[in-house]
Amino acid sequence: MSLFISFEGPEGAGKSTQIARLAVHLAEVGIAFVQTREPGGTPLGSRLRDVVLDPEVEIAPLSEFLLYSASRAQLVRDVIGPALARGEVVLCDRYADSSLAYQGFGRGLPREFLHTVTWEVTGGLTPHITFLLDLDPETGLQRAAAKGAHDRLERADLTFHERVREGFRTLAASAPERFVVLDAMRSASELEREVWSLVSRTLAFLQPPGMPRP
Amino acid sequence: MSLFISFEGPEGAGKSTQIARLAVHLAEVGIAFVQTREPGGTPLGSRLRDVVLDPEVEIAPLSEFLLYSASRAQLVRDVIGPALARGEVVLCDRYADSSLAYQGFGRGLPREFLHTVTWEVTGGLTPHITFLLDLDPETGLQRAAAKGAHDRLERADLTFHERVREGFRTLAASAPERFVVLDAMRSASELEREVWSLVSRTLAFLQPPGMPRP
Repeated sequence: MSLFISFEGPEGAGKSTQIARLAVHLAEVGIAFVQTREPGGTPLGSRLRDVVLDPEVEIAPLSEFLLYSASRAQLVRDVIGPALARGEVVLCDRYADSSLAYQGFGRGLPREFLHTVTWEVTGGLTPHITFLLDLDPETGLQRAAAKGAHDRLERADLTFHERVREGFRTLAASAPERFVVLDAMRSASELEREVWSLVSRTLAFLQPPGMPRP
Repeated sequence: MSLFISFEGPEGAGKSTQIARLAVHLAEVGIAFVQTREPGGTPLGSRLRDVVLDPEVEIAPLSEFLLYSASRAQLVRDVIGPALARGEVVLCDRYADSSLAYQGFGRGLPREFLHTVTWEVTGGLTPHITFLLDLDPETGLQRAAAKGAHDRLERADLTFHERVREGFRTLAASAPERFVVLDAMRSASELEREVWSLVSRTLAFLQPPGMPRP
């Protein structure tokens, strides 16, 4: 019953809130799951997260992409792959779509190169469901600033964040069978209901007949 | 008069000794040069060097390659490229050949993928001269151990280091116009003379007529 779910969208869109609430629902119905995030999720990932989000370290766009990819390769090998092999649900805060949106659409790195590396890094492992919490950049930046977050990404200019938003939307439009686009301006409770409604239906569908249903 | 010189070979082969001595010769004849190393050479590179050489952090081979590549991209953009553009000599302790030898031949990562990433990362920037200090792995490991070095690379098994040595030799054989293979068992002074002999002749050749010759 393995199911790989990623959450995408800008800072301030409410990804971690929605992941935490979905985790509560899964725990309530007794579904085994692993909750992780990018960059991070492994000892290497944590070390790289410290580097990549440190505003004091200047990082070339290409290096930035390769660092996220290094973290991702480790996460797929050590966490996501094994959890799916055990038949568990994986909840991931950002995954490869973030690289395509931020480093591809945002920073302008060549799309084909990003796809080549991402394919090698993930072994083609793609989420079954990707929730895109879509939010206009200005609101996202205000929300993130209110939380006191001022890392590298927040400091980039608004047009960059507009390109990233368009990138996410383009990715969603190109893979409608996987993406669920949600308006992040809606209340957290409404979004929670919609996320859980889709996930619980998917789990019921995946559950072998005769098993207790969520 | 820009000239890009890399030094390759295993730990314990004497790369840093030879680079230091070549630097002295260059300084004596008044040639502007930049001395750097991989991983490292930039603030990002130093941070990544700490991660990649920390034996406590487990790193997947693919992640390892991507980290070296991230460090390299930053080094090419911020150090090597600008120095060559200023017409200086660049001395680099390890460069892309190390990734091909260690992660390609040593760890068995797909060669074509390594080349694709390396091409993007370096923009095709290849050293004019690469000195390969060739050494049998057993001697290299003994020398490195005597120096008290016990990082990730040293701990890998002997057959790994034999594959790496073969990798370096294969790379050298495939680009004889660039590689100079030196027997690292020879004395440091002999090697120094041979290195300086070739570098000084190359610089004399590159020097415009009428300029003072090294």
